[in-house]
Amino acid sequence: MREHVKPLPTYLVSRYQGWHATSYAENRAWYRRLADEGQRPRSMIIACCDSRVHVSSMFGADQGEFFIHRNIANLVPAFTPDGDHHGTSAAVEYAVQSLKVAHLIVLGHSNCGGVAGCHAMCAGQAPDLEEKSSFTGTWLNILRPGYERVLERAPADPVTELEREAVKVSLENLMTFPFVREALDAERMTLHGLRHEIGEGTLEQYVSSSDQFEPL
Amino acid sequence: MREHVKPLPTYLVSRYQGWHATSYAENRAWYRRLADEGQRPRSMIIACCDSRVHVSSMFGADQGEFFIHRNIANLVPAFTPDGDHHGTSAAVEYAVQSLKVAHLIVLGHSNCGGVAGCHAMCAGQAPDLEEKSSFTGTWLNILRPGYERVLERAPADPVTELEREAVKVSLENLMTFPFVREALDAERMTLHGLRHEIGEGTLEQYVSSSDQFEPL
Amino acid sequence: MREHVKPLPTYLVSRYQGWHATSYAENRAWYRRLADEGQRPRSMIIACCDSRVHVSSMFGADQGEFFIHRNIANLVPAFTPDGDHHGTSAAVEYAVQSLKVAHLIVLGHSNCGGVAGCHAMCAGQAPDLEEKSSFTGTWLNILRPGYERVLERAPADPVTELEREAVKVSLENLMTFPFVREALDAERMTLHGLRHEIGEGTLEQYVSSSDQFEPL
Amino acid sequence: MREHVKPLPTYLVSRYQGWHATSYAENRAWYRRLADEGQRPRSMIIACCDSRVHVSSMFGADQGEFFIHRNIANLVPAFTPDGDHHGTSAAVEYAVQSLKVAHLIVLGHSNCGGVAGCHAMCAGQAPDLEEKSSFTGTWLNILRPGYERVLERAPADPVTELEREAVKVSLENLMTFPFVREALDAERMTLHGLRHEIGEGTLEQYVSSSDQFEPL
Repeated sequence: MREHVKPLPTYLVSRYQGWHATSYAENRAWYRRLADEGQRPRSMIIACCDSRVHVSSMFGADQGEFFIHRNIANLVPAFTPDGDHHGTSAAVEYAVQSLKVAHLIVLGHSNCGGVAGCHAMCAGQAPDLEEKSSFTGTWLNILRPGYERVLERAPADPVTELEREAVKVSLENLMTFPFVREALDAERMTLHGLRHEIGEGTLEQYVSSSDQFEPL
Repeated sequence: MREHVKPLPTYLVSRYQGWHATSYAENRAWYRRLADEGQRPRSMIIACCDSRVHVSSMFGADQGEFFIHRNIANLVPAFTPDGDHHGTSAAVEYAVQSLKVAHLIVLGHSNCGGVAGCHAMCAGQAPDLEEKSSFTGTWLNILRPGYERVLERAPADPVTELEREAVKVSLENLMTFPFVREALDAERMTLHGLRHEIGEGTLEQYVSSSDQFEPL
Repeated sequence: MREHVKPLPTYLVSRYQGWHATSYAENRAWYRRLADEGQRPRSMIIACCDSRVHVSSMFGADQGEFFIHRNIANLVPAFTPDGDHHGTSAAVEYAVQSLKVAHLIVLGHSNCGGVAGCHAMCAGQAPDLEEKSSFTGTWLNILRPGYERVLERAPADPVTELEREAVKVSLENLMTFPFVREALDAERMTLHGLRHEIGEGTLEQYVSSSDQFEPL
Repeated sequence: MREHVKPLPTYLVSRYQGWHATSYAENRAWYRRLADEGQRPRSMIIACCDSRVHVSSMFGADQGEFFIHRNIANLVPAFTPDGDHHGTSAAVEYAVQSLKVAHLIVLGHSNCGGVAGCHAMCAGQAPDLEEKSSFTGTWLNILRPGYERVLERAPADPVTELEREAVKVSLENLMTFPFVREALDAERMTLHGLRHEIGEGTLEQYVSSSDQFEPL
């Protein structure tokens, strides 16, 4: 592997140095305490890897506030304790059990390539994703129950609806984890579902009483 | 699930509204283009969920630049096309195959609770993590080969060494993915390994000629 | 001194800008009147500096409503016109004599580090606080008469009782100020004593007829 | 004292109940953790009691973030270890020594009644404040060195200049505390000086290189 690992591109070195001379410098005292005493984040956010979703700036995130897991399409699989590697389940377990976060937030977004891919796959228009060897397709299968529900409702914009389902399916699957349910029942934690519209910068949230997403 | 989903806490609504009125407003034109035309990130970063690691601010990240996957201890499992859900592998596949990122960066960090947990587990001091039902322990098993190597070298600070191994093991495992190797061989992409010291704000990078981490 | 004064950390600048673009913007007309015509607060609140006590949000405080003094353990010393600097006495004098507030509220709280420190000091378990050079210890001495009363009653939870005494001692000391007594006798002002339970969010108030704190 | 202590006015009970049913309810999990584990505020803010200065909303303050001391005109007296009650010095000592805050912020403001009173007193136009029995006058004497400097510069708006001096004098006096100096020298803490314009909602900060206040 060694020969393929290269020095960091200079433009990123420059930016890092700028950060160290400014933002790090002005927060040095706090970073040192955080290093010494450990993190105590108040919330976990599960968001998409998408480069257009600025999780931390959107919530004015202070260093140490948010434990952030990001994967394709902000999906959480159902509880499956089969001894395999489950990165998302591990992150949720660590946040809830070890860090004892007070809020667990699933943040979806518009124009999501993963969700659009899932829609195409479920509609039979993306045979590549349906191959067993496709990690992306297999991963997006988590969202298939959401596709079925969208199909039944036949909305005007099914892909946007499926983005909302990506949040709802994740919330539902989170509830299948015994330790999540326990924290919720003990009122040690609350769940939240959001969807971000990239172009307009808006947020809508899942409202349980109406079972709808409503503008914030 | 419905009754457990709550409205977003007001303090986050306020912060979001502040972001929308300032940062979003000044970047509106760019956000709209990004929404219309899709993302075209130059790099993928694989980092830890840790709340003290500010990936985007450290690299002066503009909207649309970095495709970011974050999991416990910034680990990548080896290529395992078994049809199971592999969130990390899916994210790497999507970044390399669909988005065709030019740089793939693994970013580790100091004071990592996941790495410390792995060290304790491998040393037989964390029976909880060794249980098959522990998602965190099973996930951290990816790093076990790194622990073995640290054990052989017997360094003064084995946990810090294991943080470096978390980066190296991930780089090695990335090389087991055929599409990663292909992109590297075609010189369409480069690999990079970094470790961030939270308290001092410094970065060290893996240098292939010396097989060591050296300060940036 | 100059070289030690730094620019405000960027994350606070961002939050301030968010506030200015939203909360300030929607209240601009009122802020301008308040600036032009001066404040006319209805109440003074004496509370603790503790970061977990949100005085203004707890009482839905609008701009201009509460004159707020915050010190360690919400203590008021007895009237001592000795020509020394007395920040708390000055604040009370200004509120009662110049602003003519209608309500003077002492707000104590649970889990108070200051009160716990006072308890340890009076019990001989905090020699540091007993040193003459300790500002904190000297300040907490104001509460020593409360400790004596708690000792006599020997309640199950003496520190919680001492938190209540911190409110009562302050109310008693307020009565030693001639201008406070005058305002009370003229029925221009009323006194109130509260204790806030941080974890449960509850309030209890001092009820004179029973000489007890009772839930609100 | 007892007969003068009254039940909390109903309008405040209603507001408190509204807060408990909404804001507290949505943050219950976090409040409970803060109660159990104690506070770890990142910053201390020294501000004026003035009812028009909304410290926590201006900085989007999350529960547990700011240790807040408020007194008349946001003044800090010089280090005077004479065994008397010094509420401000005690608050600073507790924040720096026990809580180990990373930022110490002095926040002044426009239209400050205390500063205007100090100006009148020093100009010989407020004999009441000059009486030894005036707590307010004695307290405002802390700012007298600032008045002398303003007098020398003879600016167009001397009271506004004195508001700036109230911040500078406090910063200077903070530097006379050995433990403040120690924390600054060890880079465990930084100092910041701000002045808020109530009517316009703006902030200016003290910039050490120019020895001036500049807009944020």
